[in-house]
Amino acid sequence: MKKLSVTEKTKVKRLPKRAFYDFETISKILDDTFICHIGFVIDDQPFVIPTCYGRKEDKIYFHGSVGSRMLMHIKKDSGICLTVTNVDGIVLARSAFHHSINYRSVVIIGKAEEINKPDEKAETLKVITDHIISGRWDDVRKPNEKELKQTSVFSIKIDQASAKIREGGPVDEENDMNLNVWAGVLPLKIVSGNPVRDTVLKENIYLPDYIKNYK
Amino acid sequence: MKKLSVTEKTKVKRLPKRAFYDFETISKILDDTFICHIGFVIDDQPFVIPTCYGRKEDKIYFHGSVGSRMLMHIKKDSGICLTVTNVDGIVLARSAFHHSINYRSVVIIGKAEEINKPDEKAETLKVITDHIISGRWDDVRKPNEKELKQTSVFSIKIDQASAKIREGGPVDEENDMNLNVWAGVLPLKIVSGNPVRDTVLKENIYLPDYIKNYK
Repeated sequence: MKKLSVTEKTKVKRLPKRAFYDFETISKILDDTFICHIGFVIDDQPFVIPTCYGRKEDKIYFHGSVGSRMLMHIKKDSGICLTVTNVDGIVLARSAFHHSINYRSVVIIGKAEEINKPDEKAETLKVITDHIISGRWDDVRKPNEKELKQTSVFSIKIDQASAKIREGGPVDEENDMNLNVWAGVLPLKIVSGNPVRDTVLKENIYLPDYIKNYK
Repeated sequence: MKKLSVTEKTKVKRLPKRAFYDFETISKILDDTFICHIGFVIDDQPFVIPTCYGRKEDKIYFHGSVGSRMLMHIKKDSGICLTVTNVDGIVLARSAFHHSINYRSVVIIGKAEEINKPDEKAETLKVITDHIISGRWDDVRKPNEKELKQTSVFSIKIDQASAKIREGGPVDEENDMNLNVWAGVLPLKIVSGNPVRDTVLKENIYLPDYIKNYK
C-alpha cells in the first residue's frame, strides 16, 4: 500500500486516529464523488469555490472557462487547497456534545499546473467527464479547437494529501447511557432520480445504460 | 426583498445571470444543507476544511474542539470564506463542452467572531444542532460547563455574500441539435436511509418523529 509522506501542512492534528495517508484510501474517497472545493488566496483573502473534477492515477484534473476568476488567479498563484467531502450520516448521541457527522474527506495541498497542449487538454476533459458519469465521453461530440481555447485545464498531484474518516455509532459518556434518548446514526447518501429528457430531444433516442444505471 | 450590497469580493464575475445577492435566495440555499467548506490562510497557504453549521437570521454559526487547528487559527486571523454547495444534477449535453452541473451555492466572505459567553455558546449550539436535525436539541442532554469549555463557537454575518444557481436542461449549439446523443438532466439528491439504532440502546426507546420524517 502506497503511503504518502506526511508534512506539517497535511498532518491531521485533531483526532489523529481518524486520519489516513495511504493512496488507496484517499483515491477511493476521491472516486466516490465529483465535486471539490478549491481554496485560493487573493490579497490575503481566502476564497472557496466548488467545481467538478476527475481523477486519473495520482492526478486530480479540474477545468473551467478561461474567464473564471479562480482559474485566472491560479495561473498566477498556483498554491491551492482542494478538498473533497462525502457525508455518510448524522451521528445522534445521547448528549448534545457527542453529536457528530459520519464523513470521508480528503484535503490536497499543492501547486496547480496548467495543461496547455490541446491534445492533453482533450484527454483531461475525457477524464473529468468520465469521472462524473462513466462512459459519457464516447457518446458526445468532442471539443473543437475553439472550445478547447475557451477552456482552462489544471492538474494537481495527489502527493501532499490526507484523508479523514469518521464512521460508526455515537460514543457517549458512561453517565449518559441510561438516558431515555434515541441514539444511533441516520445514514445519508446521494441518489439519482429519474433522468429528465431535454424537451427538444429527438424522439428515437433512448436513454443509455450508463445513465440508467448511474451510481 | 432584502438585497445585500455587492462588493468586489462577492461579485460573481463569470455568468452573472446565475448570480443572486438577495438574502432570501441565499438563506434558502443555506437552510437546505448543513455542511460548509471554510477557507482560511496560514503562511500564504490556503486550507479548506469541511464542517457543519447552523443559520439563525443573518448569522452562520460553526463550532469545534478548542484544539482544532482551524479554529485556533481563526481566533488569530479571522478572515475566512465560508462556502455551501447543493448539487442538484448532472446536465448532459450533446457536446462535451456544454456539459454542466445543476447546483445552488453560496459564498460568504467576512470576519469570524468568537462567541465566549457560556449561555450564548449553548444557544448557538442549539442553533447548529436543530439546523442539522430540527427538534433534536430538546431531546438530548445539554452541554455542561466542562463541555462548553472544550468547544469553540464562531459566527459569521451573512453580509458579504453571493449565491450562484444553475438550473434547467442543457444548452447546446444549434449545429449539434441533430446529433444522436441523449441529452437532459440526471437529477441528484441527498436522501436519508433507515436509522441505525446504537447497538447498546435501551429497548424501550422508540425512534422520534423528527428522525423518522427527516428531510
